[in-house]
Amino acid sequence: MKTKFNVAVVGATGAVGEQIIRLLEKRDFPVDKLKLLSSARSAGTVLRFKGQEITVEEAGPDSFEGIDIALFSAGGDVSKELAPHAVRHGAVVIDNTNAFRMEPTAPLVVPEVNADMISKHQGIIANPNCSTIQMVAALKPLYDRFGISRIIVSTYQAVSGAGAKAINEMLRQSKEVLEGNDPKPDILPVGSLPVKHQIAFNAIPQIDKFQDNGYTLEEMKMVRETKKIFGDDSIEVTATCVRIPVVYGHSESVYVEFKNDYELEEVRSLLADAPGITLVDDPASQSYPLATEAAGKEDVFVGRLRRDLGNKRGLNMWIVSDNLLKGAAWNAVQIAEIIAKQG
Amino acid sequence: MKTKFNVAVVGATGAVGEQIIRLLEKRDFPVDKLKLLSSARSAGTVLRFKGQEITVEEAGPDSFEGIDIALFSAGGDVSKELAPHAVRHGAVVIDNTNAFRMEPTAPLVVPEVNADMISKHQGIIANPNCSTIQMVAALKPLYDRFGISRIIVSTYQAVSGAGAKAINEMLRQSKEVLEGNDPKPDILPVGSLPVKHQIAFNAIPQIDKFQDNGYTLEEMKMVRETKKIFGDDSIEVTATCVRIPVVYGHSESVYVEFKNDYELEEVRSLLADAPGITLVDDPASQSYPLATEAAGKEDVFVGRLRRDLGNKRGLNMWIVSDNLLKGAAWNAVQIAEIIAKQG
Repeated sequence: MKTKFNVAVVGATGAVGEQIIRLLEKRDFPVDKLKLLSSARSAGTVLRFKGQEITVEEAGPDSFEGIDIALFSAGGDVSKELAPHAVRHGAVVIDNTNAFRMEPTAPLVVPEVNADMISKHQGIIANPNCSTIQMVAALKPLYDRFGISRIIVSTYQAVSGAGAKAINEMLRQSKEVLEGNDPKPDILPVGSLPVKHQIAFNAIPQIDKFQDNGYTLEEMKMVRETKKIFGDDSIEVTATCVRIPVVYGHSESVYVEFKNDYELEEVRSLLADAPGITLVDDPASQSYPLATEAAGKEDVFVGRLRRDLGNKRGLNMWIVSDNLLKGAAWNAVQIAEIIAKQG
Repeated sequence: MKTKFNVAVVGATGAVGEQIIRLLEKRDFPVDKLKLLSSARSAGTVLRFKGQEITVEEAGPDSFEGIDIALFSAGGDVSKELAPHAVRHGAVVIDNTNAFRMEPTAPLVVPEVNADMISKHQGIIANPNCSTIQMVAALKPLYDRFGISRIIVSTYQAVSGAGAKAINEMLRQSKEVLEGNDPKPDILPVGSLPVKHQIAFNAIPQIDKFQDNGYTLEEMKMVRETKKIFGDDSIEVTATCVRIPVVYGHSESVYVEFKNDYELEEVRSLLADAPGITLVDDPASQSYPLATEAAGKEDVFVGRLRRDLGNKRGLNMWIVSDNLLKGAAWNAVQIAEIIAKQG
């Protein structure tokens, strides 16, 4: 049984890649050799890991020889092209893109919910979408206890979910507005689509491309991934995904209808005891989760718990987490830690 | 029958008062004499109306002699104290505060929904809360056609709803963050409460004070006012009200469950034909309502219409309107116009 692992990070110079490297260091992950990979454009960049300097190399089909665990976060196209090569070389791939999430052979894993699926992989384990991860992590203890019949979620998503360029655009536009100038939209809502909208001091109800059914891809990810992660197609999910001018941290207004009656005090105690969840819920002291306070932290923060006054099985919740950490890098590193423990 | 009216605006120097004066001018309201009233602090300010200069006077119990219509927007306490004096002097009060909204004798009016209630007033007509007005205006044609059994709403509310000081705070904090400094919270979420939170680049799930049931007053306003305006206690409403860094324009993610089956095309055509509603709903051209585009306009903008994939009677909508206009000043002036027509 191996106790140290050769690890590759694909997309090492990106926002999520940077957090993966930081977390491998912070968690003292049993790294034997760390290989940092990127596109040709970023290759040659020198990054630090545990006091060592590592030069980023261009990722290619033969980059994965001797690699045990490969963490991908360089976009869906890169994963589709290179993940099979990593598997061919014997690596376990933890993929942070949308490329394999709905593939029946790829487990879609949030460790707090379905860590048992990790051992069933056939080479590729998919990391869910950021907005799905924090929601299902918070709902898991309630699902186990009361059953869930439906979820109605509205998101308040940070621009960092659209990459470093979107952060820069939002900050630049904010400055332009404050100076009395016209803010020029350039990237958001979707870089590859023709129409752009101002994000500074605005709320854009579009994340990713529209599907034929009128939902955006981001909204459909929340619907499909939630069912797959819980392994329960009976959960009805409907989502409205909205980008707001926040840098780090997705917030979610989640309405959940349980299959069974519940007591609010039991919901509170289940969440207070759940791994990876921090309960922040004290109206008397105006305490509730906030994006600015969740930023940089690994946990999922839950608050504003209150019963629907019209439906005794309905509960309103406010769920906040750092979209680059639990929503991406941290969830991936958690999966890697479980794989490492299993040797 | 009168054809010209003596009009008083209480709170004339505030954000809503300013918009009321602008709208009376823009709509060529049949004003005989316009009296502008404020607190002692703002009295003496000179404002312009149709080319004339009008000096703002301090509002008091005897300010309303000869006044036909008094528009109040100077806070609940001022309304509670002075509106009865206005009524005593024979004026019809259109009150923009929370003071009388749930009083059984005060009609709570959104003209597109229940204009018929105006004639039933006993001196005071209440203007609903901003977040309620835009939602019920958009839901009215759908309520009439399909019936509504429940509404689940999450709001994305502009800081202007908390007054000019909150706008200044949000802009100041934004500048502080952009300059790399620590933003100092001073006003939001609730000026009169001890705990303050950063609003710049954040989302605060608290608008107004918490009630004993865990909901905020803003959330309970949406629940109670919706039932009263539709005159239908059977509508179940649950709300999550959130302040986001937007200056003007509240956005709302509204999930509505109809009593009867519906066709999406009919929803579209009902909304396209409804008075005061502008349908902005074309995913192919990435068209949907945006706060920045609704700002300064009187209409309620509706889009992102799509059926809940799990509940054939469920519909998701995105509703946006300028909270100072349809959400306050414009709704009040609409009511005043109907009173004027009735002489």
